[in-house]
Order: sequence, then structure tokens, then C-alpha cells
Amino acid sequence: MKKKKYIYFFSNGRADGNASMKVLLGGKGANLAEMANLGISVPPGFTITTETCQSYYKNNKSYPVGLQSEIDKNLTHLEHLMGAKLGDSKNPLLVSVRSGAAASMPGMMDTVLNLGLNPNSVQGLIRKTKNERFPWDAYRRFITMFGNVVMGIQHHDFEEIMERYKKKSNVKNDADLSAKQLKDICKDFIAIYKKRTGTSFPFDPKEQLRKAILAVFESWNNARAIKYRNIYDIKGLLGTAVNVQAMVFGNMGNDSATGVCFTRNPSTGENKFYGEFLLNAQGEDVVAGIRTPEPITDLRKEIPKAYKILVGIRNKLEKHYKDLQDMEFTIQEGKLFMLQTRNGKRTAHSAIKIAVDMVKEKLIDKKTAVSRIDPNQLDQLLHPTFDPKAKRNVIAYGLPASPGAASGKVTFHADEAEKLAARKEKVILVRIETSPEDIGGMHVAQGILTTRGGMTSHAAVVARGMGTCCVAGCGNIQISYEKEEFTVDGRVVKKGDYISLDGTLGEVILGKLPTVETKLSGDFSKLMKWADEVRRLKVRTNADTPEDAKRARDFGAEGIGLCRTEHMFFDETRIDYVRQMMLVAGDVRNLEAVVEEMNNGLDKIPKEKISSFKEEIRKLKKKLDKVTKLYKGALKKLMPMQRGDFEKIFKIMNGLPVTIRLLDPPIHEFLPKEEYLQKEIAKKMGMSFKEVRDKVHSLQEINPMLGLRGCRLGLIYPDVYKMQARAIMEAACNVKKNGIKVIPEIMVPLVGTEGEMSTLKKIIKTVVTNVLAEKGGKINYKIGTMIEIPRAALTADQIAKHAEFFSFGTNDLTQMAFGYSRDDVGSFVPEFTKLGILEKDPFQVLDQEGIGQLVETGIKKGRQTRPDLKIGICGEHGGDPSSIEFCHRKGMDYVSCSPFRVPIARLAAAQAVIKEGNPLPQKTKKRQLND
Amino acid sequence: MKKKKYIYFFSNGRADGNASMKVLLGGKGANLAEMANLGISVPPGFTITTETCQSYYKNNKSYPVGLQSEIDKNLTHLEHLMGAKLGDSKNPLLVSVRSGAAASMPGMMDTVLNLGLNPNSVQGLIRKTKNERFPWDAYRRFITMFGNVVMGIQHHDFEEIMERYKKKSNVKNDADLSAKQLKDICKDFIAIYKKRTGTSFPFDPKEQLRKAILAVFESWNNARAIKYRNIYDIKGLLGTAVNVQAMVFGNMGNDSATGVCFTRNPSTGENKFYGEFLLNAQGEDVVAGIRTPEPITDLRKEIPKAYKILVGIRNKLEKHYKDLQDMEFTIQEGKLFMLQTRNGKRTAHSAIKIAVDMVKEKLIDKKTAVSRIDPNQLDQLLHPTFDPKAKRNVIAYGLPASPGAASGKVTFHADEAEKLAARKEKVILVRIETSPEDIGGMHVAQGILTTRGGMTSHAAVVARGMGTCCVAGCGNIQISYEKEEFTVDGRVVKKGDYISLDGTLGEVILGKLPTVETKLSGDFSKLMKWADEVRRLKVRTNADTPEDAKRARDFGAEGIGLCRTEHMFFDETRIDYVRQMMLVAGDVRNLEAVVEEMNNGLDKIPKEKISSFKEEIRKLKKKLDKVTKLYKGALKKLMPMQRGDFEKIFKIMNGLPVTIRLLDPPIHEFLPKEEYLQKEIAKKMGMSFKEVRDKVHSLQEINPMLGLRGCRLGLIYPDVYKMQARAIMEAACNVKKNGIKVIPEIMVPLVGTEGEMSTLKKIIKTVVTNVLAEKGGKINYKIGTMIEIPRAALTADQIAKHAEFFSFGTNDLTQMAFGYSRDDVGSFVPEFTKLGILEKDPFQVLDQEGIGQLVETGIKKGRQTRPDLKIGICGEHGGDPSSIEFCHRKGMDYVSCSPFRVPIARLAAAQAVIKEGNPLPQKTKKRQLND
Repeated sequence: MKKKKYIYFFSNGRADGNASMKVLLGGKGANLAEMANLGISVPPGFTITTETCQSYYKNNKSYPVGLQSEIDKNLTHLEHLMGAKLGDSKNPLLVSVRSGAAASMPGMMDTVLNLGLNPNSVQGLIRKTKNERFPWDAYRRFITMFGNVVMGIQHHDFEEIMERYKKKSNVKNDADLSAKQLKDICKDFIAIYKKRTGTSFPFDPKEQLRKAILAVFESWNNARAIKYRNIYDIKGLLGTAVNVQAMVFGNMGNDSATGVCFTRNPSTGENKFYGEFLLNAQGEDVVAGIRTPEPITDLRKEIPKAYKILVGIRNKLEKHYKDLQDMEFTIQEGKLFMLQTRNGKRTAHSAIKIAVDMVKEKLIDKKTAVSRIDPNQLDQLLHPTFDPKAKRNVIAYGLPASPGAASGKVTFHADEAEKLAARKEKVILVRIETSPEDIGGMHVAQGILTTRGGMTSHAAVVARGMGTCCVAGCGNIQISYEKEEFTVDGRVVKKGDYISLDGTLGEVILGKLPTVETKLSGDFSKLMKWADEVRRLKVRTNADTPEDAKRARDFGAEGIGLCRTEHMFFDETRIDYVRQMMLVAGDVRNLEAVVEEMNNGLDKIPKEKISSFKEEIRKLKKKLDKVTKLYKGALKKLMPMQRGDFEKIFKIMNGLPVTIRLLDPPIHEFLPKEEYLQKEIAKKMGMSFKEVRDKVHSLQEINPMLGLRGCRLGLIYPDVYKMQARAIMEAACNVKKNGIKVIPEIMVPLVGTEGEMSTLKKIIKTVVTNVLAEKGGKINYKIGTMIEIPRAALTADQIAKHAEFFSFGTNDLTQMAFGYSRDDVGSFVPEFTKLGILEKDPFQVLDQEGIGQLVETGIKKGRQTRPDLKIGICGEHGGDPSSIEFCHRKGMDYVSCSPFRVPIARLAAAQAVIKEGNPLPQKTKKRQLND
Repeated sequence: MKKKKYIYFFSNGRADGNASMKVLLGGKGANLAEMANLGISVPPGFTITTETCQSYYKNNKSYPVGLQSEIDKNLTHLEHLMGAKLGDSKNPLLVSVRSGAAASMPGMMDTVLNLGLNPNSVQGLIRKTKNERFPWDAYRRFITMFGNVVMGIQHHDFEEIMERYKKKSNVKNDADLSAKQLKDICKDFIAIYKKRTGTSFPFDPKEQLRKAILAVFESWNNARAIKYRNIYDIKGLLGTAVNVQAMVFGNMGNDSATGVCFTRNPSTGENKFYGEFLLNAQGEDVVAGIRTPEPITDLRKEIPKAYKILVGIRNKLEKHYKDLQDMEFTIQEGKLFMLQTRNGKRTAHSAIKIAVDMVKEKLIDKKTAVSRIDPNQLDQLLHPTFDPKAKRNVIAYGLPASPGAASGKVTFHADEAEKLAARKEKVILVRIETSPEDIGGMHVAQGILTTRGGMTSHAAVVARGMGTCCVAGCGNIQISYEKEEFTVDGRVVKKGDYISLDGTLGEVILGKLPTVETKLSGDFSKLMKWADEVRRLKVRTNADTPEDAKRARDFGAEGIGLCRTEHMFFDETRIDYVRQMMLVAGDVRNLEAVVEEMNNGLDKIPKEKISSFKEEIRKLKKKLDKVTKLYKGALKKLMPMQRGDFEKIFKIMNGLPVTIRLLDPPIHEFLPKEEYLQKEIAKKMGMSFKEVRDKVHSLQEINPMLGLRGCRLGLIYPDVYKMQARAIMEAACNVKKNGIKVIPEIMVPLVGTEGEMSTLKKIIKTVVTNVLAEKGGKINYKIGTMIEIPRAALTADQIAKHAEFFSFGTNDLTQMAFGYSRDDVGSFVPEFTKLGILEKDPFQVLDQEGIGQLVETGIKKGRQTRPDLKIGICGEHGGDPSSIEFCHRKGMDYVSCSPFRVPIARLAAAQAVIKEGNPLPQKTKKRQLND
């Protein structure tokens, strides 16, 4: 077996590694090697591989065999190269020890600078630099860093000492302390070090180095780093690399400096050298913010030679990496050293500009440009955001349920929200959870905050559909509807107080924050056009209203994949008819059955009882007539209303398919829960309040999500679906007369068995045929189904005998195959993802491993029966890039998502094609794109 | 193409068909042919095949081509054979036209007797029989039957005329009417026929025959027949056959008779010729019940020669069919004709006796004996039944949720039931639905009646487990808890009124009915022993109490497959601790997290704020200490109680495995819903009522079945599972010291992902290891999981990495893969099965097509990872014979069912093996066994 190489050396012009070795050397190490290879001046040093870190953990947290001797060898090489020696009293070498994983985790892991200092080498440094203050300052910084990073001593222990000295000498800034004072401070630091750790501060530089390397290994698994990897979904890495590198100093005089720069402007994307520097300073000083850095261009006049070289490096690196670079440098006594280069983070806006510009500059091709944009980042462009300069007083975190930013007055009731909105007040609707009754208030609210429910709770789904900002499942907040206030960590927020919501980050912020609307640029359209040229998947939208349909079409939607008819039922002018229908539907059915049975039984009744029996039938028939009148009456009122809705939507979607889902939610969602509403409807219907109340009660279900809803409603009360089918087809015929090209697709929800689909298809087909005969029209229509019940996916071959298209409802599919109620997961799913029990919230990102099997089976079996079956997805996952990639790979025809996610889906669909032609292992691939 | 043969002729000693052709000739036709072939005298005739009926429907409800000419040919042959002619005025032939499908459907389809009569042939018959009254009587019967069956005229139309004549001549019975009167009646009948139908009564016998055959075809799809096939789950038949057969008359004098007999006594199983007959009578007279039939043995002295032949036939047929025969015969003027033979229906008791006797008599072998018993029928033996002679006033029908019979006083509250039971009163607990709070009342009740919920609702599952009779989901009944009464079809039943429940039939009966306890016979044990010799599947039981465990072991259970620990939590002495634990568990968790986070953040707090921040932490810690004390205190109390439960169960199950499922149901099931209970617990816990009320409210879930339950509870509150694991293992160690062989299997419920299982396995394993170390024991234990979440089945390969056994929880699996809430299906599943949308209620009979795929995948993938994985089923399906057969075929190791179904499962498991060796198409096979 070949011995594993633990360490990769790099020095000017030569390196053992290169940029392709990120996995092994970490981002920082690989790029240092790459720069060295390019002949760019970097302080020499070596990288201990991530594999070594992995071995450290496997090896019961100790150095693997052979590592120490390899370190010694490389260190000697470094000392030789630098002509300096660690701990030397004449020409001491100082090194930095830095972490650096394959994925960027800024600030999460540990770094020790100025390593190698001890009483001896401090003197050496004084001698060498002819400066007394700087070495003592470096020494006290080193003790602090070492004490904190390696031994866990708290910062304030050191700070207290510094404060004492400053007070004593009556100065304000650290910089005002004298060399003598710093020397005394170092003594006190070493004392507190001993007091806190029980051990002496190690003066031996080799021991310092060993401990620092171990501390960096350890920092890979500190709580902070684990949390960061969880949040940013960084998985499958080996560990952190450790970069040991000769220290260079930017604070050696006015020909020294330190700075950070970007090859282009990362905020605007402009192709101009961008960055800042501090003359005669160390990196820490930039961070500490005591002095204000100067723009990078001013370096030209300060240290012209170094600036010229830096500009050359900027051009070289960008050409080399073909992407925006984020670089750190230090100039020591006129000589420029590059400390780091990496792909720069950028705003969505600049990401698009840079990508488009680079195509223009022929640096990259269109496909690369399309791959460069993180689809999720587009959200920034499509929704308002808070002014980035505004200060945020975050009082709670919830789920980032619907992106955007909003400020407004707290209100706890949907109807009140409507009243306030009518007075042009901006409101934030705060609810434990929302229900369809709240829809009016949700519509007018600037933002929605709930304390219960997950990413696909009612509030979240509706808000995303509307493009309204929403923070959901914010469990820390306790709402008291009585007192009209909410409490969070002891703080009370009352009705009328201002709060702000950041739906992108899930933040609840106290007070009113100014928002900024972003505009879509020409570059954006260009990039989307390139994406459209590449993608195979069609992108449709989930839209229930003409407004949503219009917006989605503007965003490039190629049809409606899900039009939820029930959202049309909650309109104030309609809800009473819906309630009337729902309240008597069961009675109609039951009484019909009883009357029929009694009529059939007439034959067996003894003659003497016939007349009283007939009287009984007569009475029941009368009752039946009454409820039937109410029932049919309500349906008759609703039909033209629905028809009108469909006409509007068909017109907007002229030429594009519109998939309309028949009534889906559980009955009880429509019923009046409040007593006064029950009284109102009772009066309207000529029933007693008690009757209505009992009826509402009897229609409650224990698990409504698994109850009488979807096609089950359609089968038990076929008149409702018949009404809807008629409304759809009459609308289609009507708009067609006006020259509109209409392609309706009637979708049956919640089918789980062949019988359900075949029965309903027959019922719907009959209505459709009748309407077409009456209206004399010829409409290109389809009847299909959602695949959202696990059993439907498993028996898709049978269902496809009757369904002419499939639309995967992955929300319900996830819900049922996981056994997770979307509305109740708040109590455990966030915790599970935190603990790593779940990789991701499966309601946000399609669980390809489990749910994916059902989707795959559904597609395979469906097309077995009907090879040309049109297949799409209309769950929330239809707007999630990784899920879209899955849909592409599995051969779906389209995805459908909320209007605001249409551009995201277009881009993700294009990237799916590009990735396919470019099959890197997925994880690496993703990282590279974002990093 | 070979021409299809529509008609099979049979006459003495020769037939075209035989007994194996039931599918084509129907049961009656095939057996008539078989008897003819055996040389037994049957009236000659012919059978029109079931395929012909099918062609009739395919052919738009008309005779298929060629049928008429085949009928004519066969009729001519029959006339020739009988030397008589249809409609002849000298020697008229009369025929019967009878339906007869492959499956027995008694009384469901139509029959026309005496066909061929018209004014002409009546005279012929008078001439031939030298009897004037009999032909007119036969004629009026024919007109009635024809009018009713063929033309749909209601019976009472004819009866009114009869009544008028009887009144006029002042006689009481039809038999007292004279020939003259009958002749006049015939005239009136023909008039009313014309009045009602608008057409003349057909005098042409060929037309009569054609219409009668069509009517029989039609009767295949009358509402009654469809309903019957639905109820008895008869599927896949072609149609009905039509038997046209020469009439014979048992009313031609005292050397004529008609009767029904069985080769053995069908009630007791005794091997004695059994039956009854009427001298000088027609079949109708037996049914009409005007004269009392005499026991068959008396026929010996009445018509000795015919009796002797009949006894010979009895022996011949039983030997031939090797099963109990149910026969009909007519003796015309001393000559015996067999009209029918078929396998006789029998009680469970007699079925067992007959099967065991026949083995003794070497008529059949043991396996055949085992196959002869319908496993479901055993329920009759294991539960009390009502005295079959008692008259039932059925006021409502519900689901037959738990078999048995019970009478008692109506009570609407569980606690009241307990009070009454304490006073030795027998009560029936009547509830809209039951919840775990009702468990005490359910336990003492004789029977349980609910108006909501399906076959696997809480009431149903618990009742079956207890062996208590239960009728569930009786939707016609409206309960008013306020008034303490229920209403059904206008009838009011008040608290304290007696009702009786037949849990086997789902009947609710007014009043108090006497019940009969049945005892298990020696034959029963013998048969079960034979079954045990054959079966491969092990049979375990679902038992939560020592009593259930004991009963199940007595019934032959080979272990416990499901011991639900939560049922132990509802005990009055424990529920308060459970509530205490549940109410503070969340606070403990949250406060721990907050305190930890604050401690971690201490570092970042500005110095001036440190002390107030520390004070804040101190306060929170105090609060945390309080709730922790309540939490741990409750767990500490519960642990020894649970340990005690397990010790008792382990002792009873000495030597057999006991699978214990950790806590499963949603939290809210344990919480006090009533205000007074909330006040009580608040006082005990030192909390305010408001706090408790709010807490209870905040723990409510929208879809609790998909919420925080099962392993999710165990992961969020690991202390609960730790407590249970400790209780199990301590109990195991304790009883082991007393020489008990204990094999505990710890089962984690509701696992859907690998992460859930691996995390909990680690937690449980740690506890187990600790306990074993403390107690110094060595216990043979396993840690496994339920497979009840669809995703778990799909990813079983991953879950099996950690789970050492699988138990399929097909209740939840069905619930989630169908998306049907067990508690809410009452509103649509019964309707769906009625409409044929669903074949069967999937909660009763495992849906092999859909859920079966998940089970199969789960088994396959589970064993891929762990080839020796022990796999069983513990859902309700574990006691359903067809589902047991499926489990056998798919290679499970055991089934687990409620104690009362253990014998059923043993038998079904044996039959599964026998069927496997005997691979007939399933449907035919099943029919043959039952028919």
C-alpha cells in the first residue's frame, strides 16, 4: 500500500497541489497552491490534508502515524526557504495556522496567527524589525488567540486585563498602549493563562504548533461548525485542512498594507476592480473597524509598484478562474503577498450581470452563465427586501415560509386586517395558524406570521401563492387572542405595534423597517432566454385568480398546472352558498336513499299499514324536497360564478393549457365555526341554529387531511363535481367564441384507487359531452388526476387507464408517505433536521430517496399503460431547484409552481439539462457552483 | 371457430354436464347433471349456461344468435322423453324455469313454476290427473308467479283478489277455495294482468318460456342480487344459468310428497339422516308454513319404498361428494325425484364435528378437514351468541366491529358505566366515538355501540382486543349526551333502557335478549391440532394485559406480537402521572435549550450587562428545575408500574417472545379535555388552571394521526422511551431470576426514516446495556420496528440496518397509503364498497394490490439487508384469513392478532399452506370451500 501523503507544500512558483484538489486541500489550500503554480507570490507554507483530519478522528483524536515527522520535515523546508527559524532569537519565523475546508465556512473554525512567539523570539523579532512595540503587540495577540482557540479561555478574561491597563494609563485604544505596557500585559496574560488552564503557557514553538493544529482539527466538530454545516446543508466532507504558512506583516511601516479585493464589484457586478485596504495594518485591524479602510484604487498612489502587480494578478486570476474572485493580500515592506483567492459571493443582481458580461467578454459560454446563478437567489429579485443598511432588532425566528420583506401593524384577526387595510393601513396578520376563513385578511396583509405549521401549512402555501411575505411556525411566540397581544421571551407586542417580517430569512423584527423594491434588468431577461433555450421541462404555474395567472404569464409561465377551485369558494359573496350546499348535501343523499328503500319495501308492508307507511314516505319526501331545493339552489348560484372565474383565467392564458382541480379540501373547512355565523346561515337557510350547529359538529373530522375530501367528496356528492365540470366547459365554449384558444384540463384530486377515477371520469365525461352538445362547441380537453396518494402511485398503471394526465401532488404524497401532517410538523421536523435525523425538511425539498420512489413508480407504471401520458408536478416542490432537477431526470413533462417561482423553475430546469450533459458527482458539483 | 354450446341436457342416467362444471352450469345445473350421471332419478330437463346469460348482456339484452333454435331442439327432446307436450290439451308438459348461479344466492333471483299452463293445457291436465281443482290451482299460481316475476306486478294485486273470494265464500285458507272459485280467480288474474301491464297474458307456452328465460337473465342484475353479491363478496361470475325442467308434483295424492333433507344434522353435525317432508304438498306449501312438516324418518312409514331409495341416495351422494349434502326431493305418485343437491350450510360447531367425523370415517383426510372450516365462522364458537329462538327487534344496523352478543342498559358515559358495573348492572356503552379516556367504561361494559368510526376505530380495535361485543359507526343513530338519549328513525331510547347488540351481524336490537355461551369441544382441539401440524406461520397475539395474554395463550398464541404500552397508561392510578409528564415535557426541552444557548452566549454579552443576564439565566434555571422535577418525578413513578406490568406478562408468556411497542399515540390523547380534570391536575402539579388549559390547547393537533406520536415522541422526549426500555429490561431480569424464560422484543413505532431508527436504537441500546450491567443479567432481546409508514416500507433496506425485526402495522400503513383516516372513513368507505368503487374495506381485508406492494417491498428490501430478519404483522389484518394467506405467501414469519382471533389465525395459516399445494384459481377455490 502506498503511504498516504499528509502534507502538500507550496512556495513561489511551485506547489504539490492545485485548484482541482479542493476536497483534499480545502478551498484555501487548493487555491494557495494554484496561485503558487501560476507564479503569483504567496507566503510559502504547507497544507495538512482534510484526510488527515478524518484520520485524526478515526484515530481516536490523535495524530496518525507519520504525521509528526512529515510536519517536521515540511517545517524544516519552510524554515530553510525563509532563512528563518521558529522560536529563533535572531531571525524568528512566525507562522499562521488556519483551517480551510472544501466548502467555505467563514469564521466557523479556528485560526492562530503569530505562532512561534515566546520571550526568546520576541526579542529576536525586536532585533530583526528594530521595532519594540510591534513584537510585544504580536505576542499578546498570539497569547490571546492561542488561549482562546486552543484552551478555551474566554475573551473577556484577556480583555479585562487590557482594560485595566488602559484605565491606569488613561488611554482609550489598544493602539495607544506602549511597548512596556504591552510587555507587562503579556506577563499578566501568561498568568491568567495558567490560572484558567492549570498549565503553563507553552513556550516551545513546536508544542505551540502541535496544539494549534489539534485545535484546528477539533474546531471541525465544534457546535458552531456543525450548526453551520447543517444550516447550509454541507455534507460528505472529510474534515478541515490545516494551512501552516509563513506570517507576513502589513504593519511594518508605510510601505506595508493589508486588504481585501474583488475582481469585479460583487454588489453591482460592474467590471471594475473593487476592494479596500489599510496602510500599515494587520488583517485584524480591518475587521476591528477602528480605522476606515481606503478604496483599493487609492493603493496606486500609496504603493504604486505593488498596486500594479496586484492589478496584474486580478486580471490573471479572473482569466484563470473565469469567475469573480475574492482575494486577500498583504504588502510587507513593498512586497505583495496573496493570502487567499476564491470565487466571490455576490448578490443575485450582480450574479446575473457578471454572468451576462462574461459571456459578452467571451470568458464563458451561455450554458456556463446559466449554471452560474443559484436559482433560489432569484427570489431576492422578485420580492421586495429590507434596506440592507437598516438595523434589525430580531425578536424571534420562524420558518422562511414565503420570501419578501414587509412591515406593518400587528393585528390578530383576518376581518380586522381587512378593515384596517380598507383604511390604507399596512398590517401584519399574526395568527396561531390560518384557515381558509382568513383568506380575505391574508390577501390584504403585508405579511403573515404564524406560530404553528410548517413550510406547507395553509399560511405558507397561500402566502407563497399570493407572493405575500410569511414567517410560519414561530413556536417561541405565544399569542393571546383575548388580550390581543403576543409574548416572546418575556417581551409583549400589542395589537397596533409595528413589526417587520423577513420572509426570506424567517426573521420577526421589532418596529418598522424600510423596504426596497428591486427591478428586473435586461440582463435578467437575457439570462432567462438562454435558460429557456436549454431546458426541456415546461414550466407552469399554480394560480387560482386572474391576477396570479397574469403575473405568472408575465414571469414566463407556459400554462396553469394547478388552479385550485376551492380558493374561489371563499369569496364573501359565495361562501354562504358553499356552506348551504355543504350543510344539506348529506341530508339530500341520506333522505334519497331512505325514500327509495321505503318505496321498494312498499311491497312487503301488510295491507293494514300501507296508508300510514305511505304517509311516512310523503313526509320524508317533503323534507327531502326542502333540502334538495337548498342544495340545488346553492349549486345553481355557484355555477355561473365559477364559470365567470374560469372565463377570466382562460382569457389570460389564451393558447396555454389550464389545469383545473375540482374541489379538494375537507368539508369542515368551509363551515362556519363561530356561533354568530352559524346563526346567520341558519336564518338564511330557514333552519334552526341548533340544526346548523349540530350539523357543523357532525361534519367535524378527527384527521380531516385523511377524511372526506378530494374525489371522495366528488363521489359522495357528485352534483358538486358536475357543477364544476359544467362551469369549466361552458366557460371554455364561451371564450372560444371570442377567439380565445382554450385548453382545459380537468383534474380530479386525491385519487387512490382505479374505481374512484373510473367512476368520476364517467360522471365528468357525461357532463362535458352534454355541455359540448348544448353549446355546439369542440374543445380540446383532458380529464386527469393528481397523484398524491401513495396507493395511486403504486397502482398508477390502473389509474392511467382512465386518467389522461398525471400531476404529482408531492405535498400530500410527502404528507402521507411520511405520515407527517403538514400542519403539525412544527413540533418535530425542525428539530429532526437540526439533529440530523432528517437531512432536509421533506416539504421543502423532495425526498428523492423515499417519495422519489413513489414518483418514479407512478411515472413508470402510468406510461406503461399510456405511453403518451402527460406528467407534471404541482406540489410545492415544483418550485424547488433540486426537486426540479429530479423531475427532469425522471422524465416529467412539466413542473408547476407559484407565480413568483416561475423564473426560478425556468432556470433550474435549464441547469438540470446542463448538469445532465456534465455528470459530475452531485455534491461536488453543487458546491462548485455556489462556492 | 367452434360454435358455443348454449344448452346442456340431462335425463335419467345421462347428462351432457357434470359437477365440475359449476362455473358454466351454475351449482344447481351442475349437480342435477351429476345426479343424472350417477343414475339418480331427476326430472329431465336442460340447463342454459351462464355464458349464455353473459352473452345476453353483451348482446344488448337479447338472445344470442342460435339460442332460440337450441332451446327449441332441447324442448322437443324433453317433450319426446316425457311423452308430453308443452300446452297440449291431452298430455300437457309443465316445466319449471329456475335460476342457478355458480355461487349460491338463495332467493335472490327468479323462478317460474308450472310453466306451460293456459286454458287449453289446464283442461289437458284435468283430463290427465282426473282432478279438477289441482290444475286450476296450479294455473292461478302460475299466473301470479309469471305476472310478478316476468312483468313486475305486485303480489298484493293478486292477493286482494284472493282475499275477496275468500271473504265472499267465508273461508280462511287458500286451500278451502273450490275448483270453480279458482277458475274464476284465474279469470280475474288475467284481467288484472292486462290492467297492470297493458298487454294480454301470453297463452302461447313458447312465449311463456321465452319470457321466463329472459326474466331469469334479468334477475341476475336486479338490485337485490347485486346487493347480495356485494355483501357476500361474490365476484367474477359470468351470470346465472337457467334450468328448464319437467315439473313433478308432490300434491298428487297421499303417495306424493315433497321435502328437504340433509345427509347429517346441519345444526349439531350428528351423523343422522335429517330433514322434513309434507305429504301431498308442493314446495311452496312447505315455505308457506300452513302445515307443519314431519321429520324425514316418518317418511319410512308413509311411503316406504320411496324412503328406502331416498336413504340410498343420501348414502350415495355423501360418499360421492364427501361432504354434507342438502337435498330437495319430490315424490309423485310413489316415484322419487331429486330436485337438487348441494353442499349443506352448517353451524361452526357442526362444521367441526362433521369434518372430524368424516376423518374418522376415512371419508376425507385431515388436510381436507382443515380446509372445510371457514375460519371466520369460528367466531361463533368463541363468543357468546343470542338464543337463536329469541325474536329480534332490530332498530339499526352498524358495522360488525367486534363479534359476540350482549344485552344491557344504555349508558352514555364511561364513568357512569363503571359505577353501574360496580353495582353489578349490565351496561351497553353508547358513544358517538370512544377515546382512550373511556377505556375503563369500555372494559366493564357488556357491549359498545358507537355512531361514528369504522372497523378499526378506537372502539372497534379496543373492543376486539377485549373480546367485547361492539357495533360501530351506526350513523343512523343520533346521540344527545345532554338529554341522555339516542334517537333512531324517530324512536327514542333513553338512558337505562335495555338494548342488545349483535356484534357479529352489526345489529342494534331493542330490549334484552337471552345469550348462549358456546363451549369448545374436543373436536375443536383436534381440528386445531391438525391445523397446527400443517401451518408454517407462527401465530402471536396482540395483548396489553395479563388477562389478554393468558386468554391468548390458552387459545394457542405462540407469543405476543404487539403489547401496546399506552393502554397501561390509562389506568386511573397512572393517568395523572402521564398527564404531568406530557404537560411539562415540552417546557423541559425548551428551557434546557434556552438556558444552554444563553450560557454559550455569555461570552458575547457586554460586561455591563453580564450580571443582569446571569440573573435572567438563574431565573430560567429555577423554572427549568421546577418542570424538570415534575417531569422526572412522573417518569420515576411510572417506571416501576410499567415494570410490574411487564413482569406479569413475561411470566404468563414464559418461554415465548413478547414484543413490546414503546409509546405510540399522540400526546393529546392523554391530556384532560374536561375543565374539571384540568383544574384537578393543575392543583396537583402546582400550576395554574390557565397554564394547564393553555398547555392542553397548545398540544392539540389538526391531524393527530400524522402528528407528534410514535417514535417522534420518543425522539423529542427520549426520557419517556428510556423509562420504558428500562422498565422492560428490569422486568426481564427480575422474572428471569425466578426461572422464567423471557424473550423481550422492544418495538419502535411509526418509524419512517433510517435516522429515526438509528437514533432511537442507540438510545435504547444504551439503556438496555446499562440495565443488564446493573442487574448482571443476560437476556436474549431484540430491538426492532413497526413498518407502518409507507416510506418505511420503501426504504426498508436502510431501516433494517438498525432494526432486528419488522412488524407490519398494516392499520397505519393502510391509513396512510390510502390517505384514509380510520376514524373518519365512516362517511365514505361503506358507500364506496356498496358502489363497487372499493372491492372491500381495506381496514378489514388487506389491500393486496396496493398495500400489498408496500408489504412485499418492505419484506424484500428488509431481507436484502438482513437475510434473517424476523418479520410479522400486527395490524388488524393479522386476524383476517385472506390477509393471513397473503402474509404466508410473502414469507412472513408470524401473524399477530387479538386473542379471540388466535384460533382463526391458526386455521387460516394452515389453509394457506394447503391452498399453496393446491393452486386453483383463487376465486373458484374460495367459492368451492364455502359453497
